Amino acid sequence: MTWPYKDLIAIHDLKREEIATILDMASSFKEISKRDIKKVPTLRGKTVVLLFYEPSTRTRLSFELAAKRLSADTTALSASGSSFTKGETIMDAAYNVMAMAPDCIVVRYPYAGIPRKMAQLLPCSVINAGDGYHEHPTQALLDMFTMKERFGTLDGLRVAIVGDIMHSRVARSNVYGLRKMGARVVLVAPKTLLPPGVDTWGVDVSAELDPVIPDADVIMMLRVQKERLNRQFFSGDREYSFFYGLNRARVEKMKTDAVIMHPGPMNRGVEITCDAADSARSMILDQVENGVAIRMTLLYLSLGGSVNVD
Amino acid sequence: MTWPYKDLIAIHDLKREEIATILDMASSFKEISKRDIKKVPTLRGKTVVLLFYEPSTRTRLSFELAAKRLSADTTALSASGSSFTKGETIMDAAYNVMAMAPDCIVVRYPYAGIPRKMAQLLPCSVINAGDGYHEHPTQALLDMFTMKERFGTLDGLRVAIVGDIMHSRVARSNVYGLRKMGARVVLVAPKTLLPPGVDTWGVDVSAELDPVIPDADVIMMLRVQKERLNRQFFSGDREYSFFYGLNRARVEKMKTDAVIMHPGPMNRGVEITCDAADSARSMILDQVENGVAIRMTLLYLSLGGSVNVD
Amino acid sequence: MTWPYKDLIAIHDLKREEIATILDMASSFKEISKRDIKKVPTLRGKTVVLLFYEPSTRTRLSFELAAKRLSADTTALSASGSSFTKGETIMDAAYNVMAMAPDCIVVRYPYAGIPRKMAQLLPCSVINAGDGYHEHPTQALLDMFTMKERFGTLDGLRVAIVGDIMHSRVARSNVYGLRKMGARVVLVAPKTLLPPGVDTWGVDVSAELDPVIPDADVIMMLRVQKERLNRQFFSGDREYSFFYGLNRARVEKMKTDAVIMHPGPMNRGVEITCDAADSARSMILDQVENGVAIRMTLLYLSLGGSVNVD
Repeated sequence: MTWPYKDLIAIHDLKREEIATILDMASSFKEISKRDIKKVPTLRGKTVVLLFYEPSTRTRLSFELAAKRLSADTTALSASGSSFTKGETIMDAAYNVMAMAPDCIVVRYPYAGIPRKMAQLLPCSVINAGDGYHEHPTQALLDMFTMKERFGTLDGLRVAIVGDIMHSRVARSNVYGLRKMGARVVLVAPKTLLPPGVDTWGVDVSAELDPVIPDADVIMMLRVQKERLNRQFFSGDREYSFFYGLNRARVEKMKTDAVIMHPGPMNRGVEITCDAADSARSMILDQVENGVAIRMTLLYLSLGGSVNVD
Repeated sequence: MTWPYKDLIAIHDLKREEIATILDMASSFKEISKRDIKKVPTLRGKTVVLLFYEPSTRTRLSFELAAKRLSADTTALSASGSSFTKGETIMDAAYNVMAMAPDCIVVRYPYAGIPRKMAQLLPCSVINAGDGYHEHPTQALLDMFTMKERFGTLDGLRVAIVGDIMHSRVARSNVYGLRKMGARVVLVAPKTLLPPGVDTWGVDVSAELDPVIPDADVIMMLRVQKERLNRQFFSGDREYSFFYGLNRARVEKMKTDAVIMHPGPMNRGVEITCDAADSARSMILDQVENGVAIRMTLLYLSLGGSVNVD
Repeated sequence: MTWPYKDLIAIHDLKREEIATILDMASSFKEISKRDIKKVPTLRGKTVVLLFYEPSTRTRLSFELAAKRLSADTTALSASGSSFTKGETIMDAAYNVMAMAPDCIVVRYPYAGIPRKMAQLLPCSVINAGDGYHEHPTQALLDMFTMKERFGTLDGLRVAIVGDIMHSRVARSNVYGLRKMGARVVLVAPKTLLPPGVDTWGVDVSAELDPVIPDADVIMMLRVQKERLNRQFFSGDREYSFFYGLNRARVEKMKTDAVIMHPGPMNRGVEITCDAADSARSMILDQVENGVAIRMTLLYLSLGGSVNVD
């Protein structure tokens, strides 16, 4: 059976069983990075272009290593040091890249919708590596994979997502995915950092963190964009830490086997203290490790790999 | 028969039959990028260094993909984020790169003459990816290849090059090449944007675009450097578009099978409107596609490949 | 026999015979870069991450080519254009990179001690590509390799290191290495550019260059950081050249077979004139060439290669 999509733009587009397939297959791909020779010839002779219009370390590196471990050729274009700064439109840039016959374009863009547009207009595969406040689907898949590895299933899992929900594509993708997989999501944020229409998302909402902690299996802390504090959205770092930061006292109130997640990069001392980030409950580096496996899976599937169902 | 040159610095250096050979061979190299596995082992174990002292997307990417599809190792150095900013001379940088035993250096430099100097002083191949207002030979070759694919021959073709001729290495390289191949070139520009000595180039010159259109087989629009408008050279964007921009009305006056070209990146709305850029006559993305094939050909030939004459 | 270290942080850590082994093995690795196909499969399927928090051309390129010639996959992260600028700590960044399962991290960092910390905390190999004013061990190894190639042995060799010793990791690594190998080192610098405690280093010190020249087998000029002149450390460019610059008059007073070295990039006209830099005595480009061989050797050894003792 062949994977039915050439692109991955949004978790919103995937069916429950498709997400399950990706999570199942990621386990085999994860094993490759543990070998002495971390390389399989699966995508030899394929070209993957990384088109990043926003700074990124881990996502770009993760996709690049995923592609290389499948033997694809990769090349990275970032917005600085390119003619993108010469006033060319993003779609002209995309058509230009397409004319050089890549098999896949991995794109990060500061505004929502561009990866979808590229997927519609280009014959190659397009994978969304984050578009504005819309979605970051591979992040949600690696998060779900990490939870499934830990708990065996997502069904019935209680996941709290804490922080600036309004501006978070990570939160949006996770909400769509987790709900499809049967998890129960609670969003924790001050009202100023909740998106309009959140009441239609099918999740619980809490303005307070403390009451949510004892019931959560997963507490996913979002990165605080410091530029959003001290402005209209919140009254400052220290206030934020006090109300929404994950610290030792709060960690001690978590369920015995509950875990901590964070998409990175962390602001230690703001949304998460060192006690929490470095505790035995932290799955933060597992998330990073699993990111490579998820991206290998998606590159493989999007480039025409067949679905391996046991 | 071996290709007689280790370098490609200028179209001015090539004989008519040498250009013809390159254009012939590019067809076979173009076919490689259409395969499922877009990679041949031709340059395995060779090192290609991309030394770009000016921002570039398509040229850098095009050379990089060309090298990778021939299995060469590539590494890119750009002027930012390197010790070039620590005050080292370009020739010291070049000797340093040479000491690491590359097989080819692809160089773009903001001033004329440096690629030639490097070619003379370094034992490796040097390919000019654009030097100041001098030449951009691979661009002219891909332009000529695109015209030849479309019209079968360059002999007798009427090519109008429109815009800032004075500051255009693309125009200069195309004039040299097209004339050698028997095409008839007309340069269209206001007098302030014509280079001194253009009367010795063996081309026609017109200060007006409209009279040139009905006879042209190819209209090649040059990019307008916006910083050159609103200064001493021209009176502004809107004036420029009015007199020299390619728009729907002008496209409708073109010959039945005449085509539009542009080296990119385009300033939509300045030198070219969307009507023109996206019309069926536009060969702009064919140019980009052909760029990879031309660069594969030149990497192959410069690194000692034998000329394949049928 | 397997190499006993997974990391290379400092020359200070190595025994005399270990340095000798590296220098011996580098000769065979040097030969690879002279082949037509400059690539051996030794590190196929290994991942080398280049983590550079300071601008660099030659060191980054040298490591990258070294890794590629051993068939490793490489990926470069620089401080600009990455989330390192989003306020993540260096150790969080390092753990994140580690989670993606690299086999080796080559790190350059503006402050001393970070590569050692990474080596202690990460299971992968860590190679120091320069940390603050501490060490730059691969530079010293390539310098020693260059001297040994030229003179057959380091034992008894007289090496003068001239310039800003205080802020030079190159000087520090060379002093440690050269003394272990039996060379006699004299540091030449104004007192303001000597480090505190230099009297315990076991080297001679001279505030004047001229008396040192006639006895030296090697004169190693350090790069002057221009921002250190015209401040508290020295009174200006021209004064510096007059007292400490290597010029034609000084070159003529060198021993018959004495040589000139410089780690690059050079400030021509400040610490070294063109006469000196380009003279037949100059080993500056040999140093660069040997850098690739030394880095191939260290990647090979650190990633588990066996020591080849004849």
